Amino acid sequence: MQKITFLIHCKDQKGIIAAVTNFILKVEGNITYIDQHVDVEQNVFFMRLECELTNRSIAIEDIKTDFKDSIASSFQMSWELYNQEQKPKMALFVSKYDHCLFDILGRYSADELGVEIPVIISNHNDLRSIAERFDIPFHCVPFTKDTKEEGEKQQIALLKKYDINFIVLARYMQIITPKLIGLYENKIINIHHSFLPAFPGAKPYHSAFKRGVKIIGATSHYVTEELDEGPIIEQDIARVSHIHSVDDFIMKGRDLERIVLARAIKLHAERKTMVYSNKTVVFS
Amino acid sequence: MQKITFLIHCKDQKGIIAAVTNFILKVEGNITYIDQHVDVEQNVFFMRLECELTNRSIAIEDIKTDFKDSIASSFQMSWELYNQEQKPKMALFVSKYDHCLFDILGRYSADELGVEIPVIISNHNDLRSIAERFDIPFHCVPFTKDTKEEGEKQQIALLKKYDINFIVLARYMQIITPKLIGLYENKIINIHHSFLPAFPGAKPYHSAFKRGVKIIGATSHYVTEELDEGPIIEQDIARVSHIHSVDDFIMKGRDLERIVLARAIKLHAERKTMVYSNKTVVFS
Amino acid sequence: MQKITFLIHCKDQKGIIAAVTNFILKVEGNITYIDQHVDVEQNVFFMRLECELTNRSIAIEDIKTDFKDSIASSFQMSWELYNQEQKPKMALFVSKYDHCLFDILGRYSADELGVEIPVIISNHNDLRSIAERFDIPFHCVPFTKDTKEEGEKQQIALLKKYDINFIVLARYMQIITPKLIGLYENKIINIHHSFLPAFPGAKPYHSAFKRGVKIIGATSHYVTEELDEGPIIEQDIARVSHIHSVDDFIMKGRDLERIVLARAIKLHAERKTMVYSNKTVVFS
Amino acid sequence: MQKITFLIHCKDQKGIIAAVTNFILKVEGNITYIDQHVDVEQNVFFMRLECELTNRSIAIEDIKTDFKDSIASSFQMSWELYNQEQKPKMALFVSKYDHCLFDILGRYSADELGVEIPVIISNHNDLRSIAERFDIPFHCVPFTKDTKEEGEKQQIALLKKYDINFIVLARYMQIITPKLIGLYENKIINIHHSFLPAFPGAKPYHSAFKRGVKIIGATSHYVTEELDEGPIIEQDIARVSHIHSVDDFIMKGRDLERIVLARAIKLHAERKTMVYSNKTVVFS
Repeated sequence: MQKITFLIHCKDQKGIIAAVTNFILKVEGNITYIDQHVDVEQNVFFMRLECELTNRSIAIEDIKTDFKDSIASSFQMSWELYNQEQKPKMALFVSKYDHCLFDILGRYSADELGVEIPVIISNHNDLRSIAERFDIPFHCVPFTKDTKEEGEKQQIALLKKYDINFIVLARYMQIITPKLIGLYENKIINIHHSFLPAFPGAKPYHSAFKRGVKIIGATSHYVTEELDEGPIIEQDIARVSHIHSVDDFIMKGRDLERIVLARAIKLHAERKTMVYSNKTVVFS
Repeated sequence: MQKITFLIHCKDQKGIIAAVTNFILKVEGNITYIDQHVDVEQNVFFMRLECELTNRSIAIEDIKTDFKDSIASSFQMSWELYNQEQKPKMALFVSKYDHCLFDILGRYSADELGVEIPVIISNHNDLRSIAERFDIPFHCVPFTKDTKEEGEKQQIALLKKYDINFIVLARYMQIITPKLIGLYENKIINIHHSFLPAFPGAKPYHSAFKRGVKIIGATSHYVTEELDEGPIIEQDIARVSHIHSVDDFIMKGRDLERIVLARAIKLHAERKTMVYSNKTVVFS
Repeated sequence: MQKITFLIHCKDQKGIIAAVTNFILKVEGNITYIDQHVDVEQNVFFMRLECELTNRSIAIEDIKTDFKDSIASSFQMSWELYNQEQKPKMALFVSKYDHCLFDILGRYSADELGVEIPVIISNHNDLRSIAERFDIPFHCVPFTKDTKEEGEKQQIALLKKYDINFIVLARYMQIITPKLIGLYENKIINIHHSFLPAFPGAKPYHSAFKRGVKIIGATSHYVTEELDEGPIIEQDIARVSHIHSVDDFIMKGRDLERIVLARAIKLHAERKTMVYSNKTVVFS
Repeated sequence: MQKITFLIHCKDQKGIIAAVTNFILKVEGNITYIDQHVDVEQNVFFMRLECELTNRSIAIEDIKTDFKDSIASSFQMSWELYNQEQKPKMALFVSKYDHCLFDILGRYSADELGVEIPVIISNHNDLRSIAERFDIPFHCVPFTKDTKEEGEKQQIALLKKYDINFIVLARYMQIITPKLIGLYENKIINIHHSFLPAFPGAKPYHSAFKRGVKIIGATSHYVTEELDEGPIIEQDIARVSHIHSVDDFIMKGRDLERIVLARAIKLHAERKTMVYSNKTVVFS
């Protein structure tokens, strides 16, 4: 039995839910999950719907065409329809930090993430051996400030070659250029090591230590052109106290970074996130 | 504009959501909230729906009749329809502990809970002065093991007199009899001072201390005939360590009890809870 | 048996712990709690010690003199010695928000805080009836931008009259002047409704909502001349999601504010906090 | 500069701290950490102390002898002295679940745990390839109910061969026999997938689901002869709701198990745990 996922958003109007659920009835779908959200301030309606197609003779492509013509156009919807069997392809960008990489590859091996990882790209060779241990192609694309454009070209070529759907920056530590962001809008996930908007930019643990906070955090977000200002997907925190040094913050933070990034990857892979107004709707 | 809340559950079937949302369209309701849940194991469908009635000439009573005839009967639904303007009436049962009482009355005065509290009932007079400070009628119904039945009669008379919809046991410390439970099925909320099912019964903090746990908790649940076995509404926890004595556990636990009970009251008052198979569905 | 608390800090040096514990032995004290902390970066030693004085014929004043002469001077210590029987006197500053006030007075009535509250001071009369309900003197000191200096004089006169040791701003919403801060250095506790340093200043819940955070927080801190920049005593957080409106943030935040402020009051009252370099050491 | 760690416990008596810190002064140690705890009920004193030895000509062995003669015997102390350079050797026992194994080996590779892992022992061959990926010797010791004694002999021989200090059961799923427990008293760490004492024994996630809890947990503890009754080292929890299936519980639980077990390993490796009365003192 095929399973599909709808993501829909449009101006809030009367009758959307009735129309969509009537449509699913019509194509003999069995709704297994439906959730919706209305942003009252901005008058936007969001919906996520999963269903099983009980009639094999109705093809997904036909459903798409039918939905577009009979529903989406009249409500002026933005929408996507995913076949749940097709796992999204994720590229991992890394640099020298290995803890998020180990965590993601461990989860990937244990088949927890719902993605395929066809390639790991780095500007350094330090983590090549880890990629090899997990039998994942590793490409080193080194660049300097002056050759960044050239490096980006190589990255984009690799992303095309491997047919990549979304990118995860696992403590990549490099600023992504507007060109690459444009190609993967709301499809590049970063992990920042603070509870944003506190402590954006470099060395957040050091800043947190200096400020004497009692809580540190980590934040996964989609990358936009404004550094550390993109739509937040997930955050989590850990308690610290005066007994903890900066190094303790960093060590505790590693666990936060691992967990928060893994959650964001899973949410994105399962098509549970939608972006608008620089915020996310995260369906449960 | 009148606002109403539907709570519905029935056997899971195709077309329920379409039918209900079509009905709301028909009565010119504007859906502001809809959430549903399917218990896959037991094949039960649950729905909570809020809407604004935009046409004043359609009366709530007529909507009820129409819904019953056109929808509820064909799907064999159990359902309730609440007018959001009618705050539920809550009776507080207390004994000698005052921390939950102070917290509830503080929130009540700050208009946080969405309830009316027409009466406080106790088996002791210790907390009378607190009730008086907040201008709430206080009735002391003392009883012994031998006069418990008589005491319960008086309690039930008071509950009728004040037209009570649900009961909150704010550290009441007495076992509720099957008769009263029967009259208020899934409408008596207790706060137990452990993360159930760990440490049911008396002195849970002492047991937790003895066991050397690193986490203590509190649990709000609907009262059933099995002591501390009723459907759980909400739980929360706090960290403890070897430096904490039993008294520290009790002190930390007071905050848990306050918060967890207040959340449960608010959820019940807003009709966000549904009970089945000794569990709760808690809509967000 | 008298119980005393020492708070000590000085340049880190060999032999401090040995010297202090030998001193306690000498005055026949029985150490019931001792904790210390070294700030390695700044080379500062901190200690908190509680002991029972087993010999009634040794007076606390004599212990003070002896400690000063035999220990404190040679190590160039800053130190304080408290008699645990003397509860600190706390003034509550409030404005129009009542939820923290209700919470503090509820805890005060339940004898949880370890303080005396001889007076509540406000720039409005809105909360007078609550103070009266709890039988605590309430003084309204209204002022405008132009009469702020005069208002402050009246406040200071009240603080002297009631012999106040420390001040709690329970959502007071007014900026404290340098003069008053100077009189109560590290003795004015504020509750700010965000996880500082995120969202300082006005309307933090609105800013948090706009930013699309997944976690909101509250922070209690000592007031310094830099707004919301003082030493942090305690922080806590709550999860939010896209389904929550600004009003939901505010409602969830009320619980955070209550809890975080109550914890800070208790820590200060029990002399568990020490301030240096705009940070706190918070002993457990 | 050599660094050492003392763990001490004995009957609570006057003058212990003074005696120990005077001793450290005498051997020219510079105390970098000291913490103590008194179990008031049982009148037991616990201390953990770290110091740097500033005088190279004083050997650790001599310090041990001196401490024993001059301090430990008069206070009748149980005590241990560790050289911080000697990482404890840890054996991993696994079965078929790989998520804790991946996590531990990832952390081990990132040098987070402060241990050596000379060997992985399993009753199945399923996880051999993971061990090989991380270049750690893997020994499969299969056994049946009838050959359990023989299997245990082989395990013990391996533990001796690799000079193992402590054992970690990473979802090993087999009951450890009293003989092995006796050889490694308070040195076998298990991870149980519930917040003990709730849901001991098999299938705790299923039981938690059935009970309708709103919080699930994981517990690391030292193994004793009573199943899941040993001293608790660390616990953590995650929120669940009616939308989560048993499989969701299991998936969320995997993160809990990973984190809680990793913390326990680190605490044990850094000699921060002490056991008494079936509880732990866990120094920070």
